[in-house]
Amino acid sequence: MLRFDSDYMETAHPKILEKLVEINFDKNTSYGFDSYSESAREKIRKACGCPDALVHFLTGGTQTNKVAIDALAESYEAVVCASTGHIATHETGAIEACGHKVITLEGEYGKLLPEALGKYMKDFYSDENHEHAAQPGLVYISFPTEYGTVYSKDELMQLRKICDEYSLRLYVDGARLGYGLAARCCDVTLRDLASLTDAFYIGGTKVGAMIGEALVVPKPDSVKKLFVQVKRHGALLAKGWVAGVQFDMLFYDNLYFDISKNAVDNAMYLRDGLCALGYELYLDSPTNQQFIVIENEKLEKIKDKVGYSFWENIDGEHTVIRFATSWATEKSQVDELLTLLG
Amino acid sequence: MLRFDSDYMETAHPKILEKLVEINFDKNTSYGFDSYSESAREKIRKACGCPDALVHFLTGGTQTNKVAIDALAESYEAVVCASTGHIATHETGAIEACGHKVITLEGEYGKLLPEALGKYMKDFYSDENHEHAAQPGLVYISFPTEYGTVYSKDELMQLRKICDEYSLRLYVDGARLGYGLAARCCDVTLRDLASLTDAFYIGGTKVGAMIGEALVVPKPDSVKKLFVQVKRHGALLAKGWVAGVQFDMLFYDNLYFDISKNAVDNAMYLRDGLCALGYELYLDSPTNQQFIVIENEKLEKIKDKVGYSFWENIDGEHTVIRFATSWATEKSQVDELLTLLG
Amino acid sequence: MLRFDSDYMETAHPKILEKLVEINFDKNTSYGFDSYSESAREKIRKACGCPDALVHFLTGGTQTNKVAIDALAESYEAVVCASTGHIATHETGAIEACGHKVITLEGEYGKLLPEALGKYMKDFYSDENHEHAAQPGLVYISFPTEYGTVYSKDELMQLRKICDEYSLRLYVDGARLGYGLAARCCDVTLRDLASLTDAFYIGGTKVGAMIGEALVVPKPDSVKKLFVQVKRHGALLAKGWVAGVQFDMLFYDNLYFDISKNAVDNAMYLRDGLCALGYELYLDSPTNQQFIVIENEKLEKIKDKVGYSFWENIDGEHTVIRFATSWATEKSQVDELLTLLG
Amino acid sequence: MLRFDSDYMETAHPKILEKLVEINFDKNTSYGFDSYSESAREKIRKACGCPDALVHFLTGGTQTNKVAIDALAESYEAVVCASTGHIATHETGAIEACGHKVITLEGEYGKLLPEALGKYMKDFYSDENHEHAAQPGLVYISFPTEYGTVYSKDELMQLRKICDEYSLRLYVDGARLGYGLAARCCDVTLRDLASLTDAFYIGGTKVGAMIGEALVVPKPDSVKKLFVQVKRHGALLAKGWVAGVQFDMLFYDNLYFDISKNAVDNAMYLRDGLCALGYELYLDSPTNQQFIVIENEKLEKIKDKVGYSFWENIDGEHTVIRFATSWATEKSQVDELLTLLG
Repeated sequence: MLRFDSDYMETAHPKILEKLVEINFDKNTSYGFDSYSESAREKIRKACGCPDALVHFLTGGTQTNKVAIDALAESYEAVVCASTGHIATHETGAIEACGHKVITLEGEYGKLLPEALGKYMKDFYSDENHEHAAQPGLVYISFPTEYGTVYSKDELMQLRKICDEYSLRLYVDGARLGYGLAARCCDVTLRDLASLTDAFYIGGTKVGAMIGEALVVPKPDSVKKLFVQVKRHGALLAKGWVAGVQFDMLFYDNLYFDISKNAVDNAMYLRDGLCALGYELYLDSPTNQQFIVIENEKLEKIKDKVGYSFWENIDGEHTVIRFATSWATEKSQVDELLTLLG
Repeated sequence: MLRFDSDYMETAHPKILEKLVEINFDKNTSYGFDSYSESAREKIRKACGCPDALVHFLTGGTQTNKVAIDALAESYEAVVCASTGHIATHETGAIEACGHKVITLEGEYGKLLPEALGKYMKDFYSDENHEHAAQPGLVYISFPTEYGTVYSKDELMQLRKICDEYSLRLYVDGARLGYGLAARCCDVTLRDLASLTDAFYIGGTKVGAMIGEALVVPKPDSVKKLFVQVKRHGALLAKGWVAGVQFDMLFYDNLYFDISKNAVDNAMYLRDGLCALGYELYLDSPTNQQFIVIENEKLEKIKDKVGYSFWENIDGEHTVIRFATSWATEKSQVDELLTLLG
Repeated sequence: MLRFDSDYMETAHPKILEKLVEINFDKNTSYGFDSYSESAREKIRKACGCPDALVHFLTGGTQTNKVAIDALAESYEAVVCASTGHIATHETGAIEACGHKVITLEGEYGKLLPEALGKYMKDFYSDENHEHAAQPGLVYISFPTEYGTVYSKDELMQLRKICDEYSLRLYVDGARLGYGLAARCCDVTLRDLASLTDAFYIGGTKVGAMIGEALVVPKPDSVKKLFVQVKRHGALLAKGWVAGVQFDMLFYDNLYFDISKNAVDNAMYLRDGLCALGYELYLDSPTNQQFIVIENEKLEKIKDKVGYSFWENIDGEHTVIRFATSWATEKSQVDELLTLLG
Repeated sequence: MLRFDSDYMETAHPKILEKLVEINFDKNTSYGFDSYSESAREKIRKACGCPDALVHFLTGGTQTNKVAIDALAESYEAVVCASTGHIATHETGAIEACGHKVITLEGEYGKLLPEALGKYMKDFYSDENHEHAAQPGLVYISFPTEYGTVYSKDELMQLRKICDEYSLRLYVDGARLGYGLAARCCDVTLRDLASLTDAFYIGGTKVGAMIGEALVVPKPDSVKKLFVQVKRHGALLAKGWVAGVQFDMLFYDNLYFDISKNAVDNAMYLRDGLCALGYELYLDSPTNQQFIVIENEKLEKIKDKVGYSFWENIDGEHTVIRFATSWATEKSQVDELLTLLG
């Protein structure tokens, strides 16, 4: 059966497992103070152009969002995000579990537009009763978004400007960061993220790692006692090198970017094929997630032959589904999918 | 200057202060185990027709909402309410501070309609990924709402039915409960609230008490160790009798209902007068809060002569403002207001 | 029956109730922005010698401790106190409810001695694994302590020095502050507290107020958005003037200090009488709480004639009990007690 | 350099890595619904003799303690443990971060003795003010303890009895569970733990797994919506099979128990050797952690040649240090260590 359900179905890029096998019986220092983690941190700092950045390896997206938001925001502060933001919809209230309200603004295909944020903040402080409302302290965006879209550098700069105006921190959920940066239309780089945000994470779980997300805090003074806070969230790995090795390999010889490009290339190939077959795209995604409108009748015929994600019922006769390519997708698999859909 | 800003501008009904003066040097048992609190609890249980109810006196609405919701909901559960619900808009994230997400549904003039709740719950459990979302555990409504509207008994019964179907608790914020029950169109009684909800509170601060809200849990098994939970929220009064006396007086000889009726009568008198003067009502409120659309030019002329609440800018030339009557309002004050507005 | 159970059995100093009756139908601005609260804040700032201090009125000790500690400590920081500290023993885990661990050190009759704190902090940072432990961020002491004892100015200065050395904030629970300051041996003033601590509260509930504690933050920059944080804890009073009036009266014409002196004078008179009768003092308390060792046989005889607090079983034949005088105690009542005990 | 610092220095038992390599490009269902996780759960249920048990794989000890305690205890309940309990000393206040106070009782070489627990609970409910204290709801013990000691089955039964008497849940931190069960003196089995506790975890990180702890809840009704609660703590693995494979291999063909026995055999061999060399054991540990008293002069000589854990300064001339063997330790390494110490 073909599987385009998600981008976290395979275990890890082979180089990572090879490395783990190679060092299996080495005796490592714990809690991330090992040489692989240190090397990975250095590579990431270099790639981001911020030599003083704090870099901490965590094991999942929700965990990283919790740790980062709780570290960046005052205990009483709220988070502002698009209504489709992962923290607002699919994290079981994990951010509220730390005491932070999540305020949602209407977005556009997953993006929180600067205009919407600017208007919200202006209205907020215009309201003479704003001290009775939850206080926005941090803006959360995902890059790429849950809909596969990406922000332009100009949009990020506008968001940053609003954040500066209202003393908000800007945090980027980069669960699929590689796929966003690899988008052909993308004019944003790791260095841009490092200079424009207060923190972001480089997603590993969905981009070649067995496990692991790299939280990057460009200016180390932005958070206090990060190590302690990580542990307090139950997020500190005793065998820190297991996560360190992932990123030490991914950031060696451009691997993270190369495998991200593979996913996007296959997604674009898939998109072109879908259009050629006459399918309507639900939205224009330049990354590894492709959304199409499909007739229910057709869907019924293929549903046992390919894995996909259900997204939305359009009407009684059409459905939106998502196909996700990944670092491990092969062109031949896309060909098979197109044949099936043809 | 005339003051119709809010319903919590005067201190207390004179009978309450008289009683406190009378017993000032009596030596009372602390933490609510005094005779006044016990007497007040008994009166409330009788008025609600639930002899086993837990009744606890607290000092404010946000506090009572926190305590009640946190006691009724599992730690990981979310609260569902109308987007205008007080807990969603004007409590600084106090519910999230206890770890509970607040999920908002679009309401109708402050009311969470049964249809909206039913659809939300049905959709929630239809989504195969619902275990990744915050789990609705409790429904919050206000009675009357923040817009002065009231639910019919039939609507409450429908909400209850949905709650039963999906194992949700139903909680009523009764900050202005007296004014809701006194509405001429209201077919809901204290006994109905006691039989249809898992908890509600009888607002005192806005209805004649100096301080105090009476949280009522009709079935005592609905919450565990309420006394402990109250204290853990910093909400236990050492001098519990101070709050007890408020309700012992308010529930003596129908006082709570009589003074509520006074506020509503004056509100209706005001409403009739406003209509006679040609003002447009922003919405049809049967309780002590009246909302009108006023020309900015007119507003400019009266604004230094009367206290009111700003509600909303309609366009560049009109504004919605609120006048609130209270237990202490006198008809002559309404006459003065109408003269001013004429 | 004679009642020496506690110092919060009467309602309020008569001047306070008189004032509330006087202003009952005045229409006040809400949430503490009224003239009485403002006047009370000014008087307290003056008495403390800190014209810029934040002063906020709250309704109880546990609530004030929660608000203050949560505002002064980072979300991940722990509180250090004596093992007898009220937050450690009698607040149902209210501090932990905000996420802060309470670390207890052995004290001496309720006092956290500078030596104990200094040793703890030195050991803490000497431990190479200290980043795996809860991070001490704030020191909590009570003045007077739960055992009625008071710190000398020199002890407070030593504690302050240790706090400065280790970046700890110093917070004083002043539930019975008046009685501590009125102790004959006390060389500490309100001004000293204001200059040596990061925050403290002036207890009203136990010292003449009907309700209310005045939280004082001498340097306003020590906490952020206190108003918001108070509300988020459910601790904001809509009718703020009710608490404001308490302190406006208590800090007029030396009332707070005069009535505190009355309690202490009567306590000293009681103590002298007890010693003359041959009773063993459990400890040497210079304030309004007096602890004696009494034979169980004697206790049995008096227990229905006087209210007291059980403190501790010493052995099968002796018990420690506490008598508390208050602002409202009359010398004749002490005489009656001594007669009873004779 | 010889390394006896800890039992989590190597990566994983080779069979685990082999399996991960083997299945690397298989496409798995996420969030623990894969076949390896299911198989591992079945094996664990069988080994524990509880076919209905909930089994969830997590990534670390602190995380598992947080999730389990928060799921088993009411939001307002406290945890009782020995003063040396890991949650009390080395988890940065992670339990308090969920709102639960940790109450510590003096233990004996890491063990919370039934007598101590029984006395504490009896005293607790004898105190008429106990509703003002944090409410004990759960007992935490570690097996083996932080000092390497193990409870007898009789002790566990006594603890269970006290828990039943006072409606407490019993939870076992099994970070090193294999080493405890492998102790020669141990008369406790997995089945015993399953029948005597409300939850426990089978430690993987320290016993052969690359990553992973298996939380076991013998009676599924003991907790509600565990999956949701796991995610809310940021502890849900997208690639659940990575953890599942660990336990699927460890619980195949007795591997977990065999490698645990290796660690204990080497520890006993080390202990005998140490005694033969005349070293004083700090305590009698039957598991993989061995504590000795060593002269500082001797320590100075060896400290660059062997990794160990510093435990405690005894006096100016002696130090307690810990050597830990693990599943990966070889007898020849112990011989080298003994030679070095000779």
